Amino acid sequence: MDIGFLVYPRLTPLDLVGPWEVLSRVSDASVHLVWTRPGPVQAEREIEIRATTSFADAPPLDMLLVPGGSGQLSLMRHAIVMDYIRGCARTSDWVCSVCTGALLLAQAGVLRGRRSTTHWLARETLAGFSVRVSNDRYVIDGKFATSAGVTAGIDLALELVRRTRGDEAAQQIQLQIEYDPRPPFDAGSPEKAPSEVVARARARARRFR
Amino acid sequence: MDIGFLVYPRLTPLDLVGPWEVLSRVSDASVHLVWTRPGPVQAEREIEIRATTSFADAPPLDMLLVPGGSGQLSLMRHAIVMDYIRGCARTSDWVCSVCTGALLLAQAGVLRGRRSTTHWLARETLAGFSVRVSNDRYVIDGKFATSAGVTAGIDLALELVRRTRGDEAAQQIQLQIEYDPRPPFDAGSPEKAPSEVVARARARARRFR
Repeated sequence: MDIGFLVYPRLTPLDLVGPWEVLSRVSDASVHLVWTRPGPVQAEREIEIRATTSFADAPPLDMLLVPGGSGQLSLMRHAIVMDYIRGCARTSDWVCSVCTGALLLAQAGVLRGRRSTTHWLARETLAGFSVRVSNDRYVIDGKFATSAGVTAGIDLALELVRRTRGDEAAQQIQLQIEYDPRPPFDAGSPEKAPSEVVARARARARRFR
Repeated sequence: MDIGFLVYPRLTPLDLVGPWEVLSRVSDASVHLVWTRPGPVQAEREIEIRATTSFADAPPLDMLLVPGGSGQLSLMRHAIVMDYIRGCARTSDWVCSVCTGALLLAQAGVLRGRRSTTHWLARETLAGFSVRVSNDRYVIDGKFATSAGVTAGIDLALELVRRTRGDEAAQQIQLQIEYDPRPPFDAGSPEKAPSEVVARARARARRFR
């Protein structure tokens, strides 16, 4: 199973590394970190991740996964990226996104009319692309699998292992990465977080836009 | 707040990137990825992460975080790493580990007599260092904060934000990374996973040892 992760400048590292840690543990997975060229790519803040191959040299993918991040905006008109996503949507079994990566899939036109999700702060924007936006943690509609913000990519990746390799493979990996979450607060969604925390997050997002 | 993450060959990427994604969002955090020299370091499988500074050039840290990974074993007799950990244990406010990173702290001698935890498959080994091993998701004993395997680092990092910057700062970051976990199975600990999945994980770990 050839799995490609789109790597690009200012991606959110956990959007990529969360699902990568799950999917790269599938016994027959061959993982590719794909960008315009192999070599280092500066993600958000201090993290630099190395692309292992180029769009031209990557093998045909069984699964493409597109992470989100502040760099997503400047990719929206990147013709090579858009063509690559459209190509995968034609030939791959799975086309997936984490967080605002869904906006790249939407901009490429492949989510039109589909049920999908994204980071809670980007749901309205995603709806503007004729996408049926859901508040679920992850959504699977045909070959398109999208997750909510950042950490939701871990949940989606386990679901993808379940669907492609079965329950036991997914449970095995969940146990290896000891994914038995117990955050000190229950503030991980706008429905659950204190209202002043949500308001401040919205204000912060407006400032960055 | 100067926060340093130990970067080393064959670390488990999510051990580092999970807590990094939380702690690097603290508004006054200055984050350093520390190794013997700045430059690329080959983590497990395809991921390469760039160290931003050397032990010699890193500023005095307020917090050190040591991730786990298969490369941890070959660091156990690495005098510079051991000295660095001991130095931080003297001068930093917090000395933390994720997963088998606790074995590096234990080997450096700083966890002796302390309550600590590690990846469930490494608990027996950790107990051999005169450490009081706990099955908790994360444990804080004085300035020493240790977490269970891989994804537990995210929970610990949120707790560290809570303790150093308050409830609202931790909730704000939890909401930003939409950490409202919903894995498709409840198989993330040896107490919860089906017994045959646990047995297979134990067998697999023996084979790698």
